[in-house]
Amino acid sequence: MRKQTTFITTIILLTLSLSGFSQDNDSTTIRKFFNEALGKGQSYEYLRQLTTQIGARLSGSEGAAKAVVWGKSLLESGGYDRVFLQDVIVPHWVRGKKEEGYILNGKLKTSVPLVALGGSIATPAKGITAEVIEVKSFQELRDLGKEKCTGKIIFFNRPMDPTKINTFEAYGGAGDQRRSGANEASKMGAIGVIIRSLSSTENDFPHTGSMLYATGVPLIPAAALSTRAATLLSKTLKENPNLKFYFRQSCESLPDVPSHNVVAEIKGSEKPEEIIVVGGHLDSWDLAQGAHDDGTGIAQSLEVFRLFKTLGIRPKHTLRVVLFMNEENGNRGGIKYADLAKANNEKHIFAMESDEGGFTPRGFGIQGGSPEVKLKLQSFRDLLSPYGLGDIDKGSGGVDIGPLAPQGTVLVGFKPDSQRYFEYHHTANDRFENVNQRELEMGAASMAAMIYLIDKNF
Amino acid sequence: MRKQTTFITTIILLTLSLSGFSQDNDSTTIRKFFNEALGKGQSYEYLRQLTTQIGARLSGSEGAAKAVVWGKSLLESGGYDRVFLQDVIVPHWVRGKKEEGYILNGKLKTSVPLVALGGSIATPAKGITAEVIEVKSFQELRDLGKEKCTGKIIFFNRPMDPTKINTFEAYGGAGDQRRSGANEASKMGAIGVIIRSLSSTENDFPHTGSMLYATGVPLIPAAALSTRAATLLSKTLKENPNLKFYFRQSCESLPDVPSHNVVAEIKGSEKPEEIIVVGGHLDSWDLAQGAHDDGTGIAQSLEVFRLFKTLGIRPKHTLRVVLFMNEENGNRGGIKYADLAKANNEKHIFAMESDEGGFTPRGFGIQGGSPEVKLKLQSFRDLLSPYGLGDIDKGSGGVDIGPLAPQGTVLVGFKPDSQRYFEYHHTANDRFENVNQRELEMGAASMAAMIYLIDKNF
Repeated sequence: MRKQTTFITTIILLTLSLSGFSQDNDSTTIRKFFNEALGKGQSYEYLRQLTTQIGARLSGSEGAAKAVVWGKSLLESGGYDRVFLQDVIVPHWVRGKKEEGYILNGKLKTSVPLVALGGSIATPAKGITAEVIEVKSFQELRDLGKEKCTGKIIFFNRPMDPTKINTFEAYGGAGDQRRSGANEASKMGAIGVIIRSLSSTENDFPHTGSMLYATGVPLIPAAALSTRAATLLSKTLKENPNLKFYFRQSCESLPDVPSHNVVAEIKGSEKPEEIIVVGGHLDSWDLAQGAHDDGTGIAQSLEVFRLFKTLGIRPKHTLRVVLFMNEENGNRGGIKYADLAKANNEKHIFAMESDEGGFTPRGFGIQGGSPEVKLKLQSFRDLLSPYGLGDIDKGSGGVDIGPLAPQGTVLVGFKPDSQRYFEYHHTANDRFENVNQRELEMGAASMAAMIYLIDKNF
Repeated sequence: MRKQTTFITTIILLTLSLSGFSQDNDSTTIRKFFNEALGKGQSYEYLRQLTTQIGARLSGSEGAAKAVVWGKSLLESGGYDRVFLQDVIVPHWVRGKKEEGYILNGKLKTSVPLVALGGSIATPAKGITAEVIEVKSFQELRDLGKEKCTGKIIFFNRPMDPTKINTFEAYGGAGDQRRSGANEASKMGAIGVIIRSLSSTENDFPHTGSMLYATGVPLIPAAALSTRAATLLSKTLKENPNLKFYFRQSCESLPDVPSHNVVAEIKGSEKPEEIIVVGGHLDSWDLAQGAHDDGTGIAQSLEVFRLFKTLGIRPKHTLRVVLFMNEENGNRGGIKYADLAKANNEKHIFAMESDEGGFTPRGFGIQGGSPEVKLKLQSFRDLLSPYGLGDIDKGSGGVDIGPLAPQGTVLVGFKPDSQRYFEYHHTANDRFENVNQRELEMGAASMAAMIYLIDKNF
């Protein structure tokens, strides 16, 4: 009996010490990721190149093509096991001449910042002028009846709810106006639609973003007003409900063009047939440099790979970095990537995306996977919370990696602080100088740390 | 026995339902604080007034005097139970003419951004010119020996450690150079001291901040170089160790002047004799508008009071908002406040300070109090973590409320995200436009929520 107790005690102590060692080891490795990223990180330099040397990268544009070459070349110089392109056919929408918008209030003509929504048709060359009907919802529009709306411009003016703590929730709550506003307005006989920009603040930067025409409904042009202009228009409408609004845009959809996802691989040492993806999207809207959306996700994903390489950490599973094409207006790259994974019988166990801006890391959102998987990921909190990564819970993975979900891939969305994102996103203000270097670098280290723990524990 | 079980069950259910009700009630109230602050908050407007209409507010300056009048008047219009000033005699250091600094490398004369440290003496009117000895620590300086340093300018160039996750820790690790560098250099025979700015980034904004002369040591002038200039000087010194450095500053300490803390009170409904303080400091450095340091703390503290009033929440304890004077170069306001509290036999149970910038809230640091108090405060996590306030742990309370600690007051420091603070703090760049409205407003609601829970549970 005595001997057995001693034996059991020894086993327990050994187990504790081994798990203690493993914990120490993990915490040391995570510390190394942060030391390297914050001390000698490259994500800020990657972002500088992508945003200031290439700039806007809407699918089909010269910028997007340059970004593919840049990403491939940068990965090739990284010494990874494999770098390759995947062919993707993408939409090619162009904005054309700078838009014009005016509030025509009697003799007063006030210019307002306005941009075409991505995917919209142009107005006639001379623009359209019509009276304005302001509504806050589709229901309110329908309740007005068709007669009242025919020949008018419908103005959707429901703001993002400022009281939501996570601004993505507020964005979600207002997004229908941009996506489907034109269809709803068209059904009611309207000749154009303008929406209040999906912005968390009052400013002069109109936000573009994609809209989709429904089949069987006449196509009408759709544009976004800056939030400040929307507030002004609403106020002026109260004074003069018969004012007119003028806008002109010359955007158009050109034929689809070939483009690419850029992929690189570090071969797994133990389970090379099981793949973990990390990525962001290489395309951006056309109004600015696509810094937070999604230059930061690209820069961080590239940095994750550099961190593994520089620190000499060989993953058990195969790691892939994917620079997806066409998240903004079609998600063709994400769909193609998942299609190829299926066609090639690849097994993607996890996919992580960074597409919520380069702000201070807060945690990760988990989409899919069993309750056990979620618990396992949440058990990493002890290791990650010293880095501010306490928020590990159900959440969206990301648009690009979304098509992998039906294959059983667990999606992990990197979650930075959301407070400032919707001041920049899809506007002319989404520029390099609005990304903070430390916040960006911490994000890259956070992603590397989570991938390291996933690779080790699954 | 049956009856007794039923009775006990009833009691248990009643207790559960009551505590459930209380929890619901608390979460509803906290939600109200955030709804009001994010939807109709005033902290951004308070900050706009203080920073853009008054501006810099160094103790003894016209700005500081105006800020006292502004704060008092704003609180008087708030309808609180009592508004009063506390007399404080403060130091009056003035910067004088804009400083000049040059690297003199042979025939090459390079102008560098440089500011006098607060409290420093002037150089002679024609400036000082001397060879430069670069060191990273006091020990390295001492090891050089007096002979080598005599007649020289000592250049302290130890950067803030970028790998620290909390930048305040990095600031703490580099702060001795600013506080005591002049004394250490003087002991070694130096005629002047220049330090690398305490900044988390490479930029062109030199950081001022207070230094103190030790008694019995010759006073020598002390200045800070921008981080970029410090890097340049270090690089140039490697090429030419005999280069000279020139700087000229005309700052001086004038006689002390009278100033004030501004205090307002909401009388407690149950324990009016027990006081909970919330505050920040009204003074700022002289180089800019003192936005993050500490206009945001002032704006948030004022907003906490407005939130209680607007939502009709009567506290059990007496709440005091204190706009402290002279945190930056003497803490005379904080000391005076605690002295008066003691002299008047006031019982301060808690004091909260916001003096780490107006960034996204992360939690609270607890200083003092029993382990039970800490556990109680940490038990609020369930209610506060939906607002990102998961980080409730030991930490520093704040400089202004620090002198209350010996009276047994539990100090609670509001902890916003620290990543960007040391890019602005004590520089010409600490301006209104670098404060984000949502982040600021969320901080005010966070502080109100924590004070509400403290008031209710102690």
